[in-house]
Amino acid sequence: MLDTATGLQLKQSLELIDLKLKKLLTVLILRSNKTITLVCAVRTHGQIGVPTTYGLRFAIWASEIGRHIERLNEIKARVAVGQMTGAVGTQASLGTKGIEVQESMMSILGLSHVDVSNQVISRDRYAEYFMFLANVATTLDKIGIEIRTLQRTEIGEVEEAFGKHQVGSSTMPHKRNPIKSEQVCGLARVIRATVEPALLNNTLWDERDLTNSSCERVIFPEASILTDHILLVMINVLEGLCIREDRIRENLNFLHGINMAESVMIELTKKGMDRQEAHEIVRISSMEALAGKCALAEVLGNHQKVRELLTPVEIGELLNPDNYIGTAVRQVERVIEKLGPLTQVK
Amino acid sequence: MLDTATGLQLKQSLELIDLKLKKLLTVLILRSNKTITLVCAVRTHGQIGVPTTYGLRFAIWASEIGRHIERLNEIKARVAVGQMTGAVGTQASLGTKGIEVQESMMSILGLSHVDVSNQVISRDRYAEYFMFLANVATTLDKIGIEIRTLQRTEIGEVEEAFGKHQVGSSTMPHKRNPIKSEQVCGLARVIRATVEPALLNNTLWDERDLTNSSCERVIFPEASILTDHILLVMINVLEGLCIREDRIRENLNFLHGINMAESVMIELTKKGMDRQEAHEIVRISSMEALAGKCALAEVLGNHQKVRELLTPVEIGELLNPDNYIGTAVRQVERVIEKLGPLTQVK
Amino acid sequence: MLDTATGLQLKQSLELIDLKLKKLLTVLILRSNKTITLVCAVRTHGQIGVPTTYGLRFAIWASEIGRHIERLNEIKARVAVGQMTGAVGTQASLGTKGIEVQESMMSILGLSHVDVSNQVISRDRYAEYFMFLANVATTLDKIGIEIRTLQRTEIGEVEEAFGKHQVGSSTMPHKRNPIKSEQVCGLARVIRATVEPALLNNTLWDERDLTNSSCERVIFPEASILTDHILLVMINVLEGLCIREDRIRENLNFLHGINMAESVMIELTKKGMDRQEAHEIVRISSMEALAGKCALAEVLGNHQKVRELLTPVEIGELLNPDNYIGTAVRQVERVIEKLGPLTQVK
Amino acid sequence: MLDTATGLQLKQSLELIDLKLKKLLTVLILRSNKTITLVCAVRTHGQIGVPTTYGLRFAIWASEIGRHIERLNEIKARVAVGQMTGAVGTQASLGTKGIEVQESMMSILGLSHVDVSNQVISRDRYAEYFMFLANVATTLDKIGIEIRTLQRTEIGEVEEAFGKHQVGSSTMPHKRNPIKSEQVCGLARVIRATVEPALLNNTLWDERDLTNSSCERVIFPEASILTDHILLVMINVLEGLCIREDRIRENLNFLHGINMAESVMIELTKKGMDRQEAHEIVRISSMEALAGKCALAEVLGNHQKVRELLTPVEIGELLNPDNYIGTAVRQVERVIEKLGPLTQVK
Repeated sequence: MLDTATGLQLKQSLELIDLKLKKLLTVLILRSNKTITLVCAVRTHGQIGVPTTYGLRFAIWASEIGRHIERLNEIKARVAVGQMTGAVGTQASLGTKGIEVQESMMSILGLSHVDVSNQVISRDRYAEYFMFLANVATTLDKIGIEIRTLQRTEIGEVEEAFGKHQVGSSTMPHKRNPIKSEQVCGLARVIRATVEPALLNNTLWDERDLTNSSCERVIFPEASILTDHILLVMINVLEGLCIREDRIRENLNFLHGINMAESVMIELTKKGMDRQEAHEIVRISSMEALAGKCALAEVLGNHQKVRELLTPVEIGELLNPDNYIGTAVRQVERVIEKLGPLTQVK
Repeated sequence: MLDTATGLQLKQSLELIDLKLKKLLTVLILRSNKTITLVCAVRTHGQIGVPTTYGLRFAIWASEIGRHIERLNEIKARVAVGQMTGAVGTQASLGTKGIEVQESMMSILGLSHVDVSNQVISRDRYAEYFMFLANVATTLDKIGIEIRTLQRTEIGEVEEAFGKHQVGSSTMPHKRNPIKSEQVCGLARVIRATVEPALLNNTLWDERDLTNSSCERVIFPEASILTDHILLVMINVLEGLCIREDRIRENLNFLHGINMAESVMIELTKKGMDRQEAHEIVRISSMEALAGKCALAEVLGNHQKVRELLTPVEIGELLNPDNYIGTAVRQVERVIEKLGPLTQVK
Repeated sequence: MLDTATGLQLKQSLELIDLKLKKLLTVLILRSNKTITLVCAVRTHGQIGVPTTYGLRFAIWASEIGRHIERLNEIKARVAVGQMTGAVGTQASLGTKGIEVQESMMSILGLSHVDVSNQVISRDRYAEYFMFLANVATTLDKIGIEIRTLQRTEIGEVEEAFGKHQVGSSTMPHKRNPIKSEQVCGLARVIRATVEPALLNNTLWDERDLTNSSCERVIFPEASILTDHILLVMINVLEGLCIREDRIRENLNFLHGINMAESVMIELTKKGMDRQEAHEIVRISSMEALAGKCALAEVLGNHQKVRELLTPVEIGELLNPDNYIGTAVRQVERVIEKLGPLTQVK
Repeated sequence: MLDTATGLQLKQSLELIDLKLKKLLTVLILRSNKTITLVCAVRTHGQIGVPTTYGLRFAIWASEIGRHIERLNEIKARVAVGQMTGAVGTQASLGTKGIEVQESMMSILGLSHVDVSNQVISRDRYAEYFMFLANVATTLDKIGIEIRTLQRTEIGEVEEAFGKHQVGSSTMPHKRNPIKSEQVCGLARVIRATVEPALLNNTLWDERDLTNSSCERVIFPEASILTDHILLVMINVLEGLCIREDRIRENLNFLHGINMAESVMIELTKKGMDRQEAHEIVRISSMEALAGKCALAEVLGNHQKVRELLTPVEIGELLNPDNYIGTAVRQVERVIEKLGPLTQVK
């Protein structure tokens, strides 16, 4: 019966998490929509590369949260479960109608019922709950890491909202620390750490032992409350997030345009230049732009062979990051269309 | 594209695991069916208690494997997934039909496609795969622990089949070590240990870094191969398992019948005895039976007040463990009926 | 400075753990001493084998606790550490005597001081603290598993003391559940789970971030308090442990003496019998004893060829488990002699 | 005896790790020495703050590696251990000189010997080995994270050496990815993951079971080889690391000097200005410098009240980061002096 009580708690917990996931999804879709054409630099291996959009960045997170909502729906019936099988599973003291009594009882409680069980409900079910929370927490960890990265002084593209009562350092009043995102990352470690104990709790001896009990008293509230908490923190962070378009543009041009150089090479080839030659010209011009800290567009514009095939305006267009984002806008629109309905929280 | 190759591998891996899970389920259902009325002692906290059946014990495991098959079906579409989104997700080099190209390409490969992605597929998907394997492995760990327990010399209810080429200790030719179950328990530790790295692999920086790569080269083959292996080992163990009915009966009577004493108490009350008195009589008789190492039926049969209400035959029936298994048989029949169709492996 | 406060807490925590470890060691040495000649059956792979002693069993645990005390002494100076290095490690605001000020300050506080640091103390130090606790907890987990095993109904060699206010099951008044040992095993899972977060807390960004902070607020009290608690519980369990010599003797003879058969084989060979033949005679006699549930001594005593070389008294001596424990007593004496001094807790 | 073989392997493994740790320490001390006065910006919470030195940064890592060498020395005798205690620990078949035989045998093998044991060596010893490796791996993880951070395009202070055969992206020939550091971070996850299985391997049943065996066959080579490997990789990374002093200086001045503003405030107060007023002047001037993207020195130099108390040269000196590193140089010298002797690898 104790496990049935746990089933009721888990049902409620999943409802609360579901609500927060949908709220987070709502914020991400709003953000994604607002920045659908906000072009920014990609970073792979920490190195600035070709352009993408903030809209796509938010949509990727929205999509991941969408999957978590999907997962939650699937595990609900396995996790929020009760039993009425007597002391050891045989229903020996429940008379001949035990099976029916159990089914109708659990239906009244709004829980699934076990098909069979011994004294306790098998912990593969609860392990699934903890693993779900750990997966959610790790997504938030990743978002937290990205916000902390984008808020680095040298990058400076986003900023956590600065609370009314928060004060910067007295001598460095400008300083904005991403402390909420840091908190999320730290607590995600704790949530993930409950997975292994939760799995081990499934290795009970015989028809049951009590090793799960002391352990679950710690990990159930801990993982549940902390996941709820960091979801809330992350909703706040993303709602309040200040996006600095000036710095985004600066970073996009940090490499003087060479991250868009490929398009020039392709166009030169289209216009008849030998592929090998086009590649070499662009490569050398890129090195020159970097070394001289001047725009690649300018270097290319001064190159005799390039000038024969492309006008300065054409070069400008080819190196314009805004023309370099493929189907990003349409992809994001489709994500919003697909996941939007999930956000209609009553 | 590398991740699409991984998607193809995961698709195949899940198909192999699915097959083995269904084979294991088949064995468990067969075992469950054969022992549907084989009454044995429950052990809670390692202490012998009221009766249950081996059929129910196997059915509980079958039910758990059934849930794993259900889980596998749910995660398949999220795990076996490919992408064709260009270097960073924008499909910038794929022309305007990028979205459609990706969909038809993945459909040809038999994979799901991402809605959006950056350079890599989000690792919340792969983490789900590892968590699934860990949950399966822990179920096998639990079954392994139970078999090792039931094979203990002093319990001796089951025995792993002894291979043709296996030899007992030269001086203790009788010795049968449950080494296969031990192997399963040991390897389950390794499989579970891949969950945390798999989750951390989801915390890639920005549009990607390479930390997942070195890690995944180790944990993908490790967790996949070992799970496949211990499923096979456990199928063999359960197929070959020798069940010793003599020892099962001995253990059921280990406490001289006092584990069935409750039924006598209830019957005495029904026949008019004061509840308090009935409880005390049974309690004292139980202590007497234990101390004197004689059957509780005998002690009760000699008790004046009991004799007035119950005949020796009636007492015998009340203390007969076979009459003490409630709806166990019907429960098991229903599990077999429900899960049987899953075992029709082609 | 916050980390220096943590250093003071860790110093105190280690002192408390040290005290409890020494108390536990004291109990184990007492137990070991009292059971130094109490012969019992070994179990490998859960199978009864040749004899050992409870004294040796306790001494092995005592020896392990002895190593934990040794470890604690080694890590103390690295864990209980403070710093006074200013905001970022340079002591820029502390004047030229910063190094000396730090050393004398920490000496006053009874802490080690860092040689160098940035804003925080490196978490490799704290990780070592958590790993130490996890190692201690796992030892207690192992002892808990053994007590739960030995208390199984069918084995019944030990029993956790039954608290005054504890009541057995109403209908099974004899039932003694090893609930304290079960609690220890369950909580050990939680303590072990703090190791990974503690290690990750060492991967702070640059001169510091705050991810450790939220995490440490949970795991520091959790791991410290729970370790202290399960040490206390295990001290109580071992102090109150009831050892049932009757059941120990029964289990030792569970296999009718065949677990001591090797000595007969060796003696027969010494007396001139062909080794191969001696082996075969003993093997067949063992099988016979097992099958017929009669003493191996008797079977051998009736064997013509054995009788020619050994008298019944000689056979009895060879199969007497008390003659089969090698240097166990002397080994235990040496452990007691070595570790005894550690138990002189003031 | 198998465990004694493991003892020999662990002895050798620790010797190899010791050598690599000392080589890494040597590199770090060299680096530390060469950059002892190389002033750079601190980053806390990812935000640029007051100055520190690269020398101090390397010395902090050196100090941590120094602690690992210290740890290795301490655990050696507990980890590299053998036994000769017969099948179950009693030395029953070794005659009366068993204890002495074991001691002299292990001394010949260069191993410690157990005081007591059952069939196997207690796994608290091996767990300590894995925890040591995990602690080392996490230090390398941290260093890897820092190098990846400092190599970010927008920060650009360091660069992994670019292998002869390594080619940049064809269209972005400048691109340098810190792939070695990324590899270290990824593999550290795998090494850490062996800790929990290693601890669980200490919970063997009774005098032994075999669950450790299958597990150890995986985790022993895995953790040992991977730790050795990432030590080697990190030695290479640090040996070849290109340090870009131009970018370091740029980042130090990224905030136009306001990260050194505190010193001006203190000096103004010393010269008689009201503390509150000094604070306000500096705060407002800092905001002005940031907003106008001009040097704080200039803003302050133009401030009437500041000019009355400080000359431009004085202001320049106060805001010179080189004057802002406290005892950093002396601290580093002391670390080099202390740890230098450890690097005298023969």
